[in-house]
Amino acid sequence: MPPRGESATSDSRGVATRNAILEAAVRLFAEQGVLAVSNRQIGAAAGKGNTSVVGYYFDSKADLVRALVRRFNARVNEAREDRIARLGAKPGLRDWATCLVHPYLELLEAGGPPTWYARFMAQVATDPGLRRIVVEEATSESMLRVLDGLAGCLPELPEPVLRERYRIASHVILQMCAERERALADGQQVHPAGWDEAATGLVDVLVGMWTAAVTPVDESSVTS
Amino acid sequence: MPPRGESATSDSRGVATRNAILEAAVRLFAEQGVLAVSNRQIGAAAGKGNTSVVGYYFDSKADLVRALVRRFNARVNEAREDRIARLGAKPGLRDWATCLVHPYLELLEAGGPPTWYARFMAQVATDPGLRRIVVEEATSESMLRVLDGLAGCLPELPEPVLRERYRIASHVILQMCAERERALADGQQVHPAGWDEAATGLVDVLVGMWTAAVTPVDESSVTS
Repeated sequence: MPPRGESATSDSRGVATRNAILEAAVRLFAEQGVLAVSNRQIGAAAGKGNTSVVGYYFDSKADLVRALVRRFNARVNEAREDRIARLGAKPGLRDWATCLVHPYLELLEAGGPPTWYARFMAQVATDPGLRRIVVEEATSESMLRVLDGLAGCLPELPEPVLRERYRIASHVILQMCAERERALADGQQVHPAGWDEAATGLVDVLVGMWTAAVTPVDESSVTS
Repeated sequence: MPPRGESATSDSRGVATRNAILEAAVRLFAEQGVLAVSNRQIGAAAGKGNTSVVGYYFDSKADLVRALVRRFNARVNEAREDRIARLGAKPGLRDWATCLVHPYLELLEAGGPPTWYARFMAQVATDPGLRRIVVEEATSESMLRVLDGLAGCLPELPEPVLRERYRIASHVILQMCAERERALADGQQVHPAGWDEAATGLVDVLVGMWTAAVTPVDESSVTS
């Protein structure tokens, strides 16, 4: 069964309403919590008098969350593909790390403050009922390209360690973006203050993490 | 006003009931979501016929969450203090990283599988309504000791960068523990399979991250 949104978005008024719902939803989710917010609140915040409007466009909260995850991922992927296309002939580790980090920080810089998607995504990624949506929507051509590029720069790193460090990198980027987004939305000072410096700091950390020596497990229990 | 729990826990039967509620709550929170679970469900899972029993011990969901956060932090801090006490005369960066990582993985190893606290803490840390509890309960003597120890090993690192990397380390540990806990609870294979290897892998990553060179921001925009 196609989602009800398919027919509802067939005219431009439907598209505008659907967009207004998505924009109101991500803001309320970021500020109050994905599970704490009702369809009625979202409809009201979207400026729709009809309180059942959200249910007309989205069958369930999971549907609405998936639409927002897709929207955010599409923007990140577009920015990442653009960066990959501009890489030189022999990109290094730092270049690939930049392809991971910068798309997120550029979206936050361009969209706000305040922005909402990083706090929204961080919640969904840790929610037992919703996180499968993030997992299902995660894989993209551009992310596979980056993973390939990283592997090419780190030929000594065992495949499972590479994958683990890639997952760690994803957590670092999302959680630090959510922290920064929250602080800016609350009018707090952030360190580092500039977006370039923030992105560079994360790239430094990821490069350090990926190039860290892998301790054989037998030699590891020095202090235990 | 003292929490109602104070009088309710004045006899051993009250303590046992309160513990049963906490154990049922953290399991349901980890598996279904902190905001998705009702007091009624927790009471039933704790084996209490009286469906208002949770409300008798905890004024609100925030109270219940705070009690669980405190319980988990107390266990982590105890294990960390024990590790700090056993450090040699001149602990290095790796020793301090071990004091951060190992207490968490030891608790997961000893308590399960399945365990629930890592998934619970990861949710609370990203929830806009509840995360202030994690922030308020975060500071401990042992964490300040570790931060001091790290600073001593990294005299070149600017203070704001040290603090940022410390926050990143906290995210890495919590999110990777939640991932591992979830996979083990679901009966999935985990990489690395052994707890020692998992802890060593995280210590490697944190050491690499902390020792990463700090790029001056002016020189950072090579690929942008």
